[in-house]
Amino acid sequence: MLQLYSYFRSSASYRVRIALNLKGLRYSYVPVHLLKDGGQQHASDYQRVNPAELVPTLIDDGHAIGQSLAIMEYLDETHPEPALLPRDAVGRARARALAQTIACEIHPLNNLRVLQYLERDLKLDEVTKADWYRHWITLGFTALEKMLIQSPDTGTFCHGDTPGLADCCLIPQIANSRRFATPLDAFPTLRRIESACLALDAFAKAAPQLQPDAV
Amino acid sequence: MLQLYSYFRSSASYRVRIALNLKGLRYSYVPVHLLKDGGQQHASDYQRVNPAELVPTLIDDGHAIGQSLAIMEYLDETHPEPALLPRDAVGRARARALAQTIACEIHPLNNLRVLQYLERDLKLDEVTKADWYRHWITLGFTALEKMLIQSPDTGTFCHGDTPGLADCCLIPQIANSRRFATPLDAFPTLRRIESACLALDAFAKAAPQLQPDAV
Repeated sequence: MLQLYSYFRSSASYRVRIALNLKGLRYSYVPVHLLKDGGQQHASDYQRVNPAELVPTLIDDGHAIGQSLAIMEYLDETHPEPALLPRDAVGRARARALAQTIACEIHPLNNLRVLQYLERDLKLDEVTKADWYRHWITLGFTALEKMLIQSPDTGTFCHGDTPGLADCCLIPQIANSRRFATPLDAFPTLRRIESACLALDAFAKAAPQLQPDAV
Repeated sequence: MLQLYSYFRSSASYRVRIALNLKGLRYSYVPVHLLKDGGQQHASDYQRVNPAELVPTLIDDGHAIGQSLAIMEYLDETHPEPALLPRDAVGRARARALAQTIACEIHPLNNLRVLQYLERDLKLDEVTKADWYRHWITLGFTALEKMLIQSPDTGTFCHGDTPGLADCCLIPQIANSRRFATPLDAFPTLRRIESACLALDAFAKAAPQLQPDAV
């Protein structure tokens, strides 16, 4: 059986949980608490599983795979149906670019270790830290909204009428934006797609508060 | 013919230039100066090409593709030989995870718009900004070095004995690290792979200082 090292609140873990659910794959949940014990991701046992000391990690048949986008591509290659990526190369490129607009442009600036650096090393106060957080979300969502509006390939979901890779990245990022009270009025397409996703069990069951390690 | 919107110093553009060269693909170079005119990536003409206002963008047969990792995957699907990714799903996942350790964990924290935010909004001085820059490189390279050392799949290059996706990301990131005088003594494997890459024309010719818009 697949194993997923995950933290309930990690949005990279959340992406993979959605992907696993969309594919109907069962997995065992191994919690890694990113704050407890100075961060369990830094424990030597976990470092052997994931030398980057990040969640998530997927274990499949003894192989440890890190990085959420790589994990989702791996799942799509090893369990092709239902597909997370379109069939055609141009469509696949578009779906990946949408996903990466979140995974390479927004989330890396707002993850736990960056927020810790802002606080501990740069001594930023809470207001300045929240401004930073919302700034990168707003910038990234502005790009995404435009990319979605201007393409005929946008459907019920980010690409067409079935949920896929970009949606797996979008929903956790919107959840983060709500935690930090980021105004979303300027992003009607993102909110419409969010509603469509959250109506599906695969997305609903992957939510942070429903995970075994939620507090 | 393929067109690449690129900025000589952009490491995301640099990745794609290497990939195009590895595949022996000719392309026309369209410079986008990220500093001139308040940043030509923000010009309305370019926004139509790339709504995220980022370089690079690849144009193939009228299709505009953004995000360097998506572009490289697209090139690998449309021009399969020589392959940028291994054949097996586990190997592909490993190569992608190595690439994403750079593209999702290091580079997003150090790109131009983040450095501009640190300076303009957070009013950081040059020393604090350089510390920030080197901090994320050192953290990411520490992870990468471990990932490379502990795997039998590491060869002359990041994955096996042919250059691929992870190498396309590694070389531009090492070039950046040198620009900011980041100590690399702790990363002998990265330096060894760098030497192997730079001995190849595909990498050498993609270097920033050899591009038509270099200053």
